[in-house]
Amino acid sequence: MRLIDGYDAALFDLDGVLYLGPMAVPGAVAALQELDREQVRVLYVTNNAAREARVVIDQLRSLGYSADEHNVLTSAQVAAAALVEELPPGAKVLCAGSPNLAGLLERAGFEVVYAAADDPVAVIQGYHPKLDWRMLDEVSLAIQGGAKWYATNDDASRPTERGLVPGVGGAISVIRLVVGGEPTIFGKPHRPMLREAIRRSAASRPIFVGDRLDTDVSGANGAGIDSLLVFTGAHGKFDLVQAEPELRPTHIGAGVAALLDEPRPLNLTPDQVTCRDQTVRVESGRTVLAGGVPVTEDEQLDAVWAVAHLVWSRPELDYRETLESLTLVN
Amino acid sequence: MRLIDGYDAALFDLDGVLYLGPMAVPGAVAALQELDREQVRVLYVTNNAAREARVVIDQLRSLGYSADEHNVLTSAQVAAAALVEELPPGAKVLCAGSPNLAGLLERAGFEVVYAAADDPVAVIQGYHPKLDWRMLDEVSLAIQGGAKWYATNDDASRPTERGLVPGVGGAISVIRLVVGGEPTIFGKPHRPMLREAIRRSAASRPIFVGDRLDTDVSGANGAGIDSLLVFTGAHGKFDLVQAEPELRPTHIGAGVAALLDEPRPLNLTPDQVTCRDQTVRVESGRTVLAGGVPVTEDEQLDAVWAVAHLVWSRPELDYRETLESLTLVN
Repeated sequence: MRLIDGYDAALFDLDGVLYLGPMAVPGAVAALQELDREQVRVLYVTNNAAREARVVIDQLRSLGYSADEHNVLTSAQVAAAALVEELPPGAKVLCAGSPNLAGLLERAGFEVVYAAADDPVAVIQGYHPKLDWRMLDEVSLAIQGGAKWYATNDDASRPTERGLVPGVGGAISVIRLVVGGEPTIFGKPHRPMLREAIRRSAASRPIFVGDRLDTDVSGANGAGIDSLLVFTGAHGKFDLVQAEPELRPTHIGAGVAALLDEPRPLNLTPDQVTCRDQTVRVESGRTVLAGGVPVTEDEQLDAVWAVAHLVWSRPELDYRETLESLTLVN
Repeated sequence: MRLIDGYDAALFDLDGVLYLGPMAVPGAVAALQELDREQVRVLYVTNNAAREARVVIDQLRSLGYSADEHNVLTSAQVAAAALVEELPPGAKVLCAGSPNLAGLLERAGFEVVYAAADDPVAVIQGYHPKLDWRMLDEVSLAIQGGAKWYATNDDASRPTERGLVPGVGGAISVIRLVVGGEPTIFGKPHRPMLREAIRRSAASRPIFVGDRLDTDVSGANGAGIDSLLVFTGAHGKFDLVQAEPELRPTHIGAGVAALLDEPRPLNLTPDQVTCRDQTVRVESGRTVLAGGVPVTEDEQLDAVWAVAHLVWSRPELDYRETLESLTLVN
């Protein structure tokens, strides 16, 4: 039995899972083509509110993924749809985000404004790479004037080929320092995005596949669905082992192709955990690999998975040396 | 004896102390003219790094204050002077601030750059009302590339006639979310600005006059000098009574004219504090005005000062009703 056989849809994060900047993650295109052939429903779920769904679809297609307007979901789309439920029709909304977000708000029937003096009933912040600081003045003043405060998502940073740059979470923190409190947020790991992704997938048992514990895995756990953490992006073995309960995935895999492999079976006792051929046990307060350091990536992932479960049940254990020896896993 | 007789210089914060937006604070111009006649050294000290000293001088003069380049000090001036001590001559500095800050850095001999790709040895953030978000990308990338991180000041917000708008503290928080850690900061309440203000005043016993506990009073306390909190600006009687020890001023006054009045004498016992004719005592866990609510602003300030000292020594006391009854004090 393969991991995906237990699910009827797969929801994918994009950056660090299906592509890294401009390149496809090795093996991912072939894996998704296989899911396609087997008619597994696939949904692409991205927090990036600055790019139009059309641009995301074109990028995915150019890399070899099969994507269309039905299976790409952005936090800006979720936000615009949610505001229709929250605000009166045609309400004035101050948009401190990208032209993409403003366009979605207009198509949802709102009057988009850019000044507190226009008396908006709500403000929404979204990622915009060329945001003008003066828009943050307007956001602050509008909220002080009584406008409701929303944000598409709250990612603190964005990976780029040059390094990390600030995300919209930074622009939210600017406003928080002035007005206090918190906005209502739609993107991962918050509920509205996961709820809409599950609804669109029309699945009874979907799995979320992502590279981040704090957005992807946390969002899946919060929505009550299973998750697969892949090691091709932001988070690695140390993040996994140190994760608090609400950030722990259901499965791990080197990459998305793990959906087509059998799930990792576990045998847990208080003093040792076994995952297939890898047994990790406790010796004088430390984790130890019973059979020494395995040689393949897949075996090392089995060992990481066993270490994680042993440490989650016994957080006092020293696992550093064991994890460091598993050099094929990020 | 008047309050100012105990000091040989007075250092003034500007906004909320000498002016409110475009208007002089009532009574402040006359008070400073009196200090001038008595040859008390006066220094104007502002965290605003976006405005040139020249502009500040012109504004002060237009309101009737006597100001020149010798007695106006901005955080941008302090920053540029401090960087000369910290960095090699002619070093490349990435400036994420106003043209005023960039000009001061250039006059201090630095090569001002605006891109991480130029390999700056340091970045400095300063308030700039029209900051482009892309500069925050460059700041993040330069720090990831090894550049030292500085900021002129860290005010979270700025008062304007329209309401509060974000200060450079917000732009600092954006970067903190990406790179972690803290910049070196020069403005109030941090040491470099207070040290330079004291040096410039050439005083052996200066007093700092301000409207904010967290910048003005905290800065004065940190620099080991006395302070006068005035009630014409940001902070009021509740802020005063709730202040932690490091935020408590030496004196309070309705406005800067309090420098020309006698200081408030105090008589403290564990169960009651008397300031001139006002006695505040403890009754079943609450503060009580022994003589009822006084009728003049000056008497009410005496009562506030007595309440503050009683509550500072006995923080469990309920003082809300007493403070609320003193309606002539903010």
